[in-house]
Amino acid sequence: MIALDHHFIDEIIRGNLQEEVFKGQFGLEKENARVDQDGKLALTPHPSVFGDKLDHPYIKTDFSESQIEMITPALNSTDEAYHFLETLHDIVTLELQDEYLWTSSNPPVLPSEEKIPIAKMNDPKEDHYRVQLAEKYGRKKQLLSGIHFNFSFRDSLLIRLHQKLGQTVSYQEFKDGMYLKVARNILRYRWLLIYLTGASPVFDKTYIERCVHLSNHLDEESHYFPYMNSLRNSTCGYRNEKPYYVSFNSVKDYVRDIRQFIANKQLLSAKELYSSLRLKTAKGEDMLAELIEHGVEYLELRMIDLNPLSKIGIRHDTLQFIHLFIVFSLFLQDEPLDLEEQKQAHDNVDLLLSEGIHAKIQMDHTTVSMEALALEILDSMMELLNILKPGDTKDQQVIEQEKKRILNPQTSYAAIVKSEIEKSSFSAYHLNQAKLYKKLSMEVGYQFAGYEDFELSTQLLLKAAIKRGIRFDILDREENFIRLQTDTQVEYVKQATKTSLDSYSTVLIMENKIVTKEVLRANGIRVPNGEAYGNIEEAMSAFENYLGKQIVIKPKSTNFGLGITIFTGEFSIEDYRKAFEMAFEYDRTVLLEEFMTGKEYRFLVMGDEVVGILHRVPANVIGDGLHTIVQLIHEKNKDPLRGKGYKTPLERIQLGDAEALFLKGQGKSAEDIPASGEIVYLRENSNISTGGDSIDYTDEIPDSYKQLAVRSARAAGATICGVDMMIDDYQNEATPHNYSVIEINFNPAIHIHCYPYQGKNRKADDKILDLLFEAKR
Amino acid sequence: MIALDHHFIDEIIRGNLQEEVFKGQFGLEKENARVDQDGKLALTPHPSVFGDKLDHPYIKTDFSESQIEMITPALNSTDEAYHFLETLHDIVTLELQDEYLWTSSNPPVLPSEEKIPIAKMNDPKEDHYRVQLAEKYGRKKQLLSGIHFNFSFRDSLLIRLHQKLGQTVSYQEFKDGMYLKVARNILRYRWLLIYLTGASPVFDKTYIERCVHLSNHLDEESHYFPYMNSLRNSTCGYRNEKPYYVSFNSVKDYVRDIRQFIANKQLLSAKELYSSLRLKTAKGEDMLAELIEHGVEYLELRMIDLNPLSKIGIRHDTLQFIHLFIVFSLFLQDEPLDLEEQKQAHDNVDLLLSEGIHAKIQMDHTTVSMEALALEILDSMMELLNILKPGDTKDQQVIEQEKKRILNPQTSYAAIVKSEIEKSSFSAYHLNQAKLYKKLSMEVGYQFAGYEDFELSTQLLLKAAIKRGIRFDILDREENFIRLQTDTQVEYVKQATKTSLDSYSTVLIMENKIVTKEVLRANGIRVPNGEAYGNIEEAMSAFENYLGKQIVIKPKSTNFGLGITIFTGEFSIEDYRKAFEMAFEYDRTVLLEEFMTGKEYRFLVMGDEVVGILHRVPANVIGDGLHTIVQLIHEKNKDPLRGKGYKTPLERIQLGDAEALFLKGQGKSAEDIPASGEIVYLRENSNISTGGDSIDYTDEIPDSYKQLAVRSARAAGATICGVDMMIDDYQNEATPHNYSVIEINFNPAIHIHCYPYQGKNRKADDKILDLLFEAKR
Repeated sequence: MIALDHHFIDEIIRGNLQEEVFKGQFGLEKENARVDQDGKLALTPHPSVFGDKLDHPYIKTDFSESQIEMITPALNSTDEAYHFLETLHDIVTLELQDEYLWTSSNPPVLPSEEKIPIAKMNDPKEDHYRVQLAEKYGRKKQLLSGIHFNFSFRDSLLIRLHQKLGQTVSYQEFKDGMYLKVARNILRYRWLLIYLTGASPVFDKTYIERCVHLSNHLDEESHYFPYMNSLRNSTCGYRNEKPYYVSFNSVKDYVRDIRQFIANKQLLSAKELYSSLRLKTAKGEDMLAELIEHGVEYLELRMIDLNPLSKIGIRHDTLQFIHLFIVFSLFLQDEPLDLEEQKQAHDNVDLLLSEGIHAKIQMDHTTVSMEALALEILDSMMELLNILKPGDTKDQQVIEQEKKRILNPQTSYAAIVKSEIEKSSFSAYHLNQAKLYKKLSMEVGYQFAGYEDFELSTQLLLKAAIKRGIRFDILDREENFIRLQTDTQVEYVKQATKTSLDSYSTVLIMENKIVTKEVLRANGIRVPNGEAYGNIEEAMSAFENYLGKQIVIKPKSTNFGLGITIFTGEFSIEDYRKAFEMAFEYDRTVLLEEFMTGKEYRFLVMGDEVVGILHRVPANVIGDGLHTIVQLIHEKNKDPLRGKGYKTPLERIQLGDAEALFLKGQGKSAEDIPASGEIVYLRENSNISTGGDSIDYTDEIPDSYKQLAVRSARAAGATICGVDMMIDDYQNEATPHNYSVIEINFNPAIHIHCYPYQGKNRKADDKILDLLFEAKR
Repeated sequence: MIALDHHFIDEIIRGNLQEEVFKGQFGLEKENARVDQDGKLALTPHPSVFGDKLDHPYIKTDFSESQIEMITPALNSTDEAYHFLETLHDIVTLELQDEYLWTSSNPPVLPSEEKIPIAKMNDPKEDHYRVQLAEKYGRKKQLLSGIHFNFSFRDSLLIRLHQKLGQTVSYQEFKDGMYLKVARNILRYRWLLIYLTGASPVFDKTYIERCVHLSNHLDEESHYFPYMNSLRNSTCGYRNEKPYYVSFNSVKDYVRDIRQFIANKQLLSAKELYSSLRLKTAKGEDMLAELIEHGVEYLELRMIDLNPLSKIGIRHDTLQFIHLFIVFSLFLQDEPLDLEEQKQAHDNVDLLLSEGIHAKIQMDHTTVSMEALALEILDSMMELLNILKPGDTKDQQVIEQEKKRILNPQTSYAAIVKSEIEKSSFSAYHLNQAKLYKKLSMEVGYQFAGYEDFELSTQLLLKAAIKRGIRFDILDREENFIRLQTDTQVEYVKQATKTSLDSYSTVLIMENKIVTKEVLRANGIRVPNGEAYGNIEEAMSAFENYLGKQIVIKPKSTNFGLGITIFTGEFSIEDYRKAFEMAFEYDRTVLLEEFMTGKEYRFLVMGDEVVGILHRVPANVIGDGLHTIVQLIHEKNKDPLRGKGYKTPLERIQLGDAEALFLKGQGKSAEDIPASGEIVYLRENSNISTGGDSIDYTDEIPDSYKQLAVRSARAAGATICGVDMMIDDYQNEATPHNYSVIEINFNPAIHIHCYPYQGKNRKADDKILDLLFEAKR
């Protein structure tokens, strides 16, 4: 009964378009109700950190003030869309203080109808529309939440197909034809998508009285209808008062029909048509007019439930399946979807939701079980994959997975969710999931899913931008080069802190240690005394002057500790020569400086402010009198902030040769059990890269030092920089002699101040955006 | 009779201070009268490009508006001082349109007294002082010009000596003692310095009537006194009405005596005391008070004539000799210089000027010829050198030279000048020298003497800064990193065009070709189409798309033409692969771009303005039907703008293998004689480094292209940049299709726009300073 269009398949193969047809743009939208700690609908306003609800491109409110909507941009793969939605989800989650994102499409425990807050949009039209909806459908129904999946084929595919197949019609007409064909097939078989994605089988007794009245219950609160895997798609769900069928034969007819419903006052506007699928254009001010002018630009699939089994409400393989189903719909034989067929398709959804996958339906004048038909569809999808992507097992596995959910309805998401709810209650289960997911989001708060190849500082900045509704592009991924954009401003940023806020000469000053020192000194900042040498001979002639002193010998312009020698004790003329020889390998000019005592602190200066102060401590564990050093390391490494290869704010402590040797030097072994409270160091150096800890001292260090850091930055003309200061004892106020600034860095990492080992998140990411976008206004 | 202080010499040697004693700080001041094309005193105002006459640290006016004064800062060697003065001289010369710097200490042809313009200082005190001088001395005498030599020993030397020798007095007293000793010896033997530096033996008949009346004459205009080698130091010269002797026994006495003369109304102020030597302090608001407070900080020797035999008015070996004489004066036995000895010293000068070097003087109760005493002094200087710097032949040669001038008075500067004047006239000779020197200054207008190791762009910027009185420091010589400073502003500049005017992100945009293109494209600028590849395989898979097209393959981020391949004709898959392999050696990302037709022009954008447009042409000669290619190259290479190794704006055309091969490819040989007007190219590439020509098109290219260049700069947010544009035919206005921007450069060279092969000096150096210092206010 399911017939592939082999003529079309042949054209695709002849055009060598097999890969192209699987490409496209993917966008996701999802809503989550906010709930309080008890799982009740949160009655608080939309978090103000997200700025303007109406203008924010990524984070808005839906019908209710308590319903957050997250929207990804159009991205190039399901993978990217998935990760972006995950990041939106994480960002929103972390900004909710004592609240959670409700994990079900079905509303949480609700107050009485009039207490449900309608979103305040500060826009009379938007506000009026929501009031009308509330009157027409009741506020409770509007709180049903779900996921929309937006998809478009590549223009290049459609252009090529038009050249091959559609020469008799215009490109726009041809393109519309392609999308309409897909739309019809999706509408026809949407019951299958609803079966496979449905995940809202149970609802709370505070939901619409009529529905609760008609339903069965698992316990006092948790209600359900037998076989109904998606309340949201059911008659008790997010539907118009009655089904409004619109033509999918042409864009013109589609638009005409919707306009007719509006003219008849059956619909308030096009967006009140709660269909499972919409034809869309990129600019949607007046969607219907745009459709006529530009044709279909993408399809919006709207029947997908939030999946409580996934942190972000949808699994990645579900996205893959929906994409494969859309592509499959293009390759299906085209059949009419007139009023009768639309009714049939609509009834099939209701049949599924009332009788389940074993229900019998009429198809091509024969009776067939939904299960059998579903399997036939999946087999046909598999057949298509075998033709277009022979040997691609990844997509085939996705289809195999879904097949199992049909063969064994107990493994469908709805069935699993229902069985989980049976163990506690609708409310308890979903709240528990929400709390679990919040924990997961917190653990990866420092990263931007899908952008893990970026430096952490850039990942944080991108997330901060998203949070306040600043759009972004990646200009050069390898270089962490991004563009941030609002309606009125464009900013280019590289590696998070290289921005338009600093001038070129400022950076050049900081890049050059000699110049830096001169500039700082000229501005009354204490810097280490020292000299610069252009060759070994010059340096050697100064040897006697430094005999017996504590000195540092270092190349003028390296930043990674290469070629640096420190003499704190006695040194011979040979040692001295060797140190210079090594340094000269890295630069033509080598500096000799007095070695500064005290501890080193990194001051992150932004604008006129010290945003964070950090001190690094070598890798260490603290004994408890019970566990060995090995065990203590293992325990400390469990911290989700610790990882390997700079993908996390901290690195795991290793126990390699270097550490073993360092322990040995202290007369210790890794199997020793340190006394309770004893600090055991595993490294001499305090680098984060070798497992060091970063300790936030922002609140401890007196203001006098902060002023020096700000003055240092100002001397170089810097807006954003890292000032490395040696401080003898921060418990004393700064004097002209008890500190020195050893370096200012023009590309300070910000993540270390946001996710230190000990201390607060200093929100350096937000501060950059404040300076770039607020201060510049 | 001349006795070295051997005790002092021993102390110096014991302290290992032999080198230190020859170090110090050197400053020069000189005046030149401005003259017109006929050698008459110029009556025009001081050139306005030099800004404020009073505040300018380097270029001022002296007594007369027509008398330019040039002042070097204190520098570390006679060499540096010489070069700095040369640069000041060049700068001033080049700004005088139809005027010249008069080469004699004696005034040029003068108008009547009252027509000589007194400098307008816009300062009532200064203006009043000049009026008083004019009344007291007459304006003509005030027009005598000369050179002042300022010198200080190193503080470190004096501190060491104080520790060794002077513990019983304070450091200031000790230091004053050292300088006073030197001062006394210089005053005593100043007749020798005047003999060796005197170069104003003849004067014009328009000079002071009384002097003309008393003198002999060479011709109708040119007057002289027998044996007088320096009019300026004579009774007809720059002297007070009568000699005012002040004590040099202590600073206190020195100050007391001057104050007494002022109190007695004999002097208007301390600076009216026209002594041969002054004690000075660095800050001279109230010099006498400062002397009491801080002691002597340097000595000012004031008896030096302008030497018409040297472009800048003084030879370098003269500076060396004066320095050696100062050092020598420190090592001479100290003898009293009371009133009587001062009179004697004064009379000796008059004796020298009236009787010449063979005059007999009284010395230690015996009669001796000045010649014999001079030789004894020089021998004694030589002896000292042999002790302190054995084997240093350079300084010894200087003394030997001067010795010859004593033994053979005809070789003294004055004698040579007089004999030259005899060939024409006072006025004709000096004017001729002035015109010759102007030509020499113009030939090296692109360079900053003593700073030739800097990039030409930086040399030009430094000179432009000096011109308008902006002080500078060198922060990192190797890196061309300078600090520019006025009383109210500090600017840091690297390589002339890396300034605070551009933001860091702007530079990062330009540094990255992919980002540049994206930014330009997003702002409606046409850029070459193309793609970026991350590895060979990706690139190879695109091969078919580019078959038969004209393409460029280049690394993403190199700026020196390295790793670039251009295919304008057919190319094989192997050629294509090789090109990518080569490019990948330079960058991880390689760009493939369409090859742009048309000619390439460099637009130098500064602010909202295109300052210059340059087109480069390969090395070539133009035939005259007479000379061979070799001869034509030789001729073309005579252009002083051409040199070797980037020290000049253009490079000499070579005739090496590459050029010979290129000629052969055209069926030509280097010995061929090209027809008149025939252009023979010697290279395919148009690089300046291989002898290419730079042609200024600033006035030819239509405004429509300039607007595109400015828009390109603005797209990247750049204030200073080089926009490289391909233009199909500049005779047509720009359209969206007949140009493309192939690069924007954040560190454009400016010298190429100031000293092109053909075209005007576009003064890009001045424009940078306008933007840095004017626009920022």
